[in-house]
Parts: sequence; C-alpha cells; structure tokens
Amino acid sequence: MTAAFQRLWQEIATIGRDPRGGYLRYALSEPELVLRDWFRNQAARRDLAVTEDGNGNLFAWWGRPWGPDAVLTGSHFDSVPHGGGYDGPLGIVSAFLAVDALRERGVTPGRPIGIAAFVEEEGGRFGVPCLGSRLLTGAITPEKAAGLCDRDGVTFGEALGARPAGALPGLARRVSAVVELHIEQGKALVDLGAPVGVASAIWPHGRWRMDFTGTGDHAGTTRMADRHDPMLTFAHTVLAANEEARAAGAHATVARVEVEPNATNAIPSLVRGWLDARAADTPTLDRLVEAVLKRATEQAGRDGTGVVVEPESLSPEVAFDTALAARLAGILGGAPILPTSAGHDAGVLSAHVPTAMLFVRNPTGVSHSPAEHAPDEDCAAGAESLATVLEALT
Amino acid sequence: MTAAFQRLWQEIATIGRDPRGGYLRYALSEPELVLRDWFRNQAARRDLAVTEDGNGNLFAWWGRPWGPDAVLTGSHFDSVPHGGGYDGPLGIVSAFLAVDALRERGVTPGRPIGIAAFVEEEGGRFGVPCLGSRLLTGAITPEKAAGLCDRDGVTFGEALGARPAGALPGLARRVSAVVELHIEQGKALVDLGAPVGVASAIWPHGRWRMDFTGTGDHAGTTRMADRHDPMLTFAHTVLAANEEARAAGAHATVARVEVEPNATNAIPSLVRGWLDARAADTPTLDRLVEAVLKRATEQAGRDGTGVVVEPESLSPEVAFDTALAARLAGILGGAPILPTSAGHDAGVLSAHVPTAMLFVRNPTGVSHSPAEHAPDEDCAAGAESLATVLEALT
Repeated sequence: MTAAFQRLWQEIATIGRDPRGGYLRYALSEPELVLRDWFRNQAARRDLAVTEDGNGNLFAWWGRPWGPDAVLTGSHFDSVPHGGGYDGPLGIVSAFLAVDALRERGVTPGRPIGIAAFVEEEGGRFGVPCLGSRLLTGAITPEKAAGLCDRDGVTFGEALGARPAGALPGLARRVSAVVELHIEQGKALVDLGAPVGVASAIWPHGRWRMDFTGTGDHAGTTRMADRHDPMLTFAHTVLAANEEARAAGAHATVARVEVEPNATNAIPSLVRGWLDARAADTPTLDRLVEAVLKRATEQAGRDGTGVVVEPESLSPEVAFDTALAARLAGILGGAPILPTSAGHDAGVLSAHVPTAMLFVRNPTGVSHSPAEHAPDEDCAAGAESLATVLEALT
Repeated sequence: MTAAFQRLWQEIATIGRDPRGGYLRYALSEPELVLRDWFRNQAARRDLAVTEDGNGNLFAWWGRPWGPDAVLTGSHFDSVPHGGGYDGPLGIVSAFLAVDALRERGVTPGRPIGIAAFVEEEGGRFGVPCLGSRLLTGAITPEKAAGLCDRDGVTFGEALGARPAGALPGLARRVSAVVELHIEQGKALVDLGAPVGVASAIWPHGRWRMDFTGTGDHAGTTRMADRHDPMLTFAHTVLAANEEARAAGAHATVARVEVEPNATNAIPSLVRGWLDARAADTPTLDRLVEAVLKRATEQAGRDGTGVVVEPESLSPEVAFDTALAARLAGILGGAPILPTSAGHDAGVLSAHVPTAMLFVRNPTGVSHSPAEHAPDEDCAAGAESLATVLEALT
C-alpha cells in the first residue's frame, strides 16, 4: 500500500504548490479546478460515476449515487494559503486507495460508497469554513452563501457560476454513515504510539470579524494626543484574546489583518482583524468571546476609536456518534479515540448522519503550514484502515 | 486668483480618485502618468520647456533649463493610498498659477524658474520617501533606488524603464534657491489666523521595517503554550511604540502591516510591521527608536519569536535657510514661521541649495486622508504668495 500511496500522492504533489512555501489551493481557483479534474480522472479510471450537488461539491460513486444507505467518505482539496498538502487531499487520495484495496480483497460492497470532494472547507477564500457541507445539509442558505465575497470582490455565486442548490432532501435516508479520514492536527497519536486514531468530538469554535475604526491622518504631523488610531485598539485586543484564552484553557488567535490605507505614514482609518476562538465546551467558548469583545470595546472607548464585531461562522460542539466510534476503534484493533479542536465537514454532517473520523499520525503536530507532514507508511496505514472500515460499514 | 485656481484644480480633481475615498496616485502608476501628461500640457500652454532628469523627475522651465541660478519650485503628484488631493499637487498647480500671475504683473524674471514634479515623494510605492529628490541630489545611489520593489515585485528601475541617472552635477551652481509650496499638515496656521506661513525646520524622521518571525501552525489545534506567534510580539511592539513616543514628546506610528499567510485559522509565520518615528531633534529620535526596538526584542524573547529590523529610510533634521525664511516672511508681510514633522523634497534639497517652504492653511489639520482639505481662497492666497516670492528671488 505504501508504494500505491506514493504513486497517487505524487500525481497531485505539485498542483498549487507555491514557490514561497506550501500550497495555494483556494476553492474554485485554478489549482483546485485542476485537482477536481484529477478527481474525475481517478473516478473514471475506477469506473466510478461522478455527480455534482450544485453546491460545488463533487462525488464519485461505487454503486448507486446517493444510496439509499450509502457510506460517504472523502474530504476536501482546498488549503489555507501556504498550508500543507495533507489537510484535505489525504482523505480523498485515501478514499480512492481504499476502493482499490477493497477490490483487491475481492469485496463487493452491499451499500454504495461515495467519495466526496467538498468545496471551501477552510473558508480561506469566502470566509465561511465547511461551506460545501453547510450548503449540502442546509446549515447555510444558498442566498447567504452565494453572496459571500473573496478578497477580490468575487462572490461564491459568481465563482460557482450559479446559485447554489442548497440542502439535499432525504440526506439521512440516502446516507447511512460518513467516515472522513484526515491528518491529525496535533501530536496525540505520537504520544499514543498509534498510526491511526478515531475522533470522539470537535470543540465548538467560530470566527468573528472585528472592524476597528479610527481617524485617518498623517502619521508624521498628528500629535499623539490628537490621534484616534485603531491599530492601538487592535493590538490591545490581540493581547487580550491571548490572555483570556490562556486563562480559560481555550484557544484564541488573531492571525488575519487588513489595514486601510496600510501606508507607513498614514494613521489607519480601519484595522480589520479576525478572531478565531475555540474551547472544549460551549459555555467556555461563549465566556471567552464575550470577555475578548468586552475588553476590545472598553479599549476602543479609551482610544477614541470604534469597534464593530460580526460573527462570520459558528460551529457548535460536535460529539461524533459514540457507538460508531467505538465500533471503528474495535474493527481497527483498538485504535485510540481522541478529540480535536479543528473543524471538519464531518462535523457539519454529524448533525444529520452517524459520522466518524479517522486521524493519521502527524509527527510534528504542525498543520496549516508548509511544514505539515505525515510519513508515507502512516498514510498507507490510514488508507488500509479506511478500507477496513468501509468494508465493515457496507 | 480664486477662480483661476478653481479652474486649474478642477482639471486634475478626478484623476486617480478612488470610489472608496481619497486618491490612488502611486508613483509611475496610470493616474500619476496621466498627471504627468497634464503637466506637459500645462507647460506647453505656457511655452515652458519640459526636461527630465533621468530619475523620474519632470521639470518645466521659464528661462534656461538648469540655470545657472535657477529658482526651483513645484512639488509631487504621488499620494499615499487613499490620501487627499492637496499633499503634493497643490505645489505644482500653484507654481503654474504663479507663472501666470507673474506674466499678468508684466514681470520678466532675471533668473530661470523651474517647476518640478518629483517622483515617489511619499514612498507609497517603493518604500523610500523623497526618492526623486534623493536621486537628484545623490542621497541614494541609482543602484539602490533601481532595486527597490513595490508590493507586486516590480522594481523602481523596471517602472522607470531605465537605470536612474543619479545625481545632477553642479546642482548648487545651477539652482540658487528652492521654494516648495505645500498644504500644512497640522493646524498651526489656523491657530495663528494666517492663510500662508513659511517653514523653519523639519523634524528628523525615518522608517524601520520590523520582521517578526514565528512558527506557522493551526490556530485551532495548537495549544497556547506551544505557540510561537509573531502577532503577539507585533502587538506588544505597537503599544510600546505608542507609549515611548508619548513619553518622549515625539511621534511613533505603526500603520502598515503584512501577515503571512494572513489566514484566520493559521498562526502566522511572519508579521511585518513598519515603524514611522519622528522627533524634534536627532538624539530624541535615536533614543525613541532604540527604546522601541529594545522592547520588541525583549518581547520576542518571551514569545519565542524572532525580530529583525531594517531601516528603510532616515531623513536627518532639516533647518531651512534661516535668512531665506526671514526674507520670505518679510516679503509676505510678516507671514508666520513654523516647523513641521512631515518630510518633503525641499528637506532633501536643503542640504545642497538655500531652500524654503510655504505652507497653506488646513482648517482641520488632517492630511494623508480623504478628509484633507484647504479652502479655495487660501489656495489662491498661496499661489499669489508664491508668485510674490518668485518675483523677489528672480
């Protein structure tokens, strides 16, 4: 399996790789469209029928599309800017390899197997993560999704070339289980000494856009006392988020900033920052976000600036199907069961269908970075495990 | 004169105006090239010969180009992004109006008058302010200037289409005086009740690029204690710069930021910020910058991040020619004499030629902002004053 993995992985390794490091595979951008063509070719090579759901998601089917009682696997192609190549594509490549393994084993599944390539899982282009699975399940309306803008002012509707189709009726009847395989974004499997694990839960998490507004003016001539500089309020809020998250045993990050006019010698009129916050449970997350925003507002009062906060996405706590997770861990010979604080399409689908995730060991735990990596042998073990799980579920 | 000002001002009012507010008139960009064509047309209308100096600077001459003993006036067309329309262009428009006024007065100057349009005064595109006057005077080498990059990776040499020509030999012989007219970037003339003033000095000032480096990773899954997040060090430094400047009675601003990868869910690997610092004297400026960079370095040690600082430009303290300033104030009927903390091409030229500046009243003091404004009557008074000064100096 390791050689098979290496061959297939090599086919996509250069697509969207950026000379400055990592990958630029924004949803529906050129490299992601090339990966979609590759997906269609892989499906054709295996006589799998490809369907689209009108939301930007692609599916390759072994057996009757959309079931009933299909088992859905796969993941997403899109990356965060300059992210690694494993987050997403590993789940799709492993799904094709799992189909090959089942055929080599002589298995004829009793239920259809669907390989999904979900669109805009990272929210790296249009701001809402898991956009494809949210549309498919009705967690976001087609109208709202269609109007989401990328940094160049292109809407999701324009990039898709159509109004999104929205929720697929009868999803719970059409799909009996979802199993998404993903590189672990942490080092728990390293500590546990296991190449593959099963997910128990996803921390609740969300994104908040914070617009800090002030008075644009000359950075050289404006007296310090006369300034209404939103960069100061932003900086206070970055540090407040870090302090509050540490105090709460939670995670908070401000990693994206846009400044207007962003000129060295002009006090900004606007500093826009995004807060990413996550916690093990919803009350902790709510308290964390409330505390950060309170401190931002108080500081804006002191700085003579303004702050307006807009939630961009909120992903509630996900407890994956406990029985399914226990069953998969058993099938896989006692694979460990572990939670994650990263969001996934599987988390969105879990509200509608029994859902599980398999994690593949990540030696450094690093993800969303060019340094993200998993050994070929562990990736092969992941694909074998996925095949075993799909065999049991179908 | 007010009607003449309004007519000429109207001709350029829409060039480079951005629907989001203010002007985008980057050096050698489309709108600035249109303004240069307008400059050539204005010169042709007045039978003024236009010369270029091979550094991107344009000159329109009444009398023999480059003297000897020419009197140089004019200013620059380029703006900070989304800046106002007065900072720069007011000095060029006023120079053409001053020529008209002298001709109406029947004056035949005994010395040549040159109207300059200096390139890249703001440093908004290539990072070094007063780039054109620095090249003309030899304050920067053609090699260094040619290699300066804009945000799209285009060099100044590429934008210019040639290696810059560099210093003009014999400048002090060719030019007997420089008088740059500029909108005031502050409210001193409002307080003094005068439409026009004369500059005494420019605060020493500079720009420092600060690269805060850390470890790119997943914002959701990386434990707070395991992070090396350069955004935290950046935020500390923003607040430190503000505190130190207030304590020193100086000015410090961090108004421009670039983040890699700048994704909501990815801890940055790099946060690049620019420090703009200014003070009334050089020792104060040196102490201020040293204090800010020391605090940045100490905080990087605590955050497990790195910081590398590169000075991008340093403009020493400028004391304009005292006798010339006093003479102009006298000619203008006792105009007030005042310092500024903004840099100007006149400051660069003052190291080589007796130099003065005229300031035009700015009711709000706001500059480098779409809100920058001067009343038409004050602009007309500025152009009349410039004519009177040019008459006396030629």
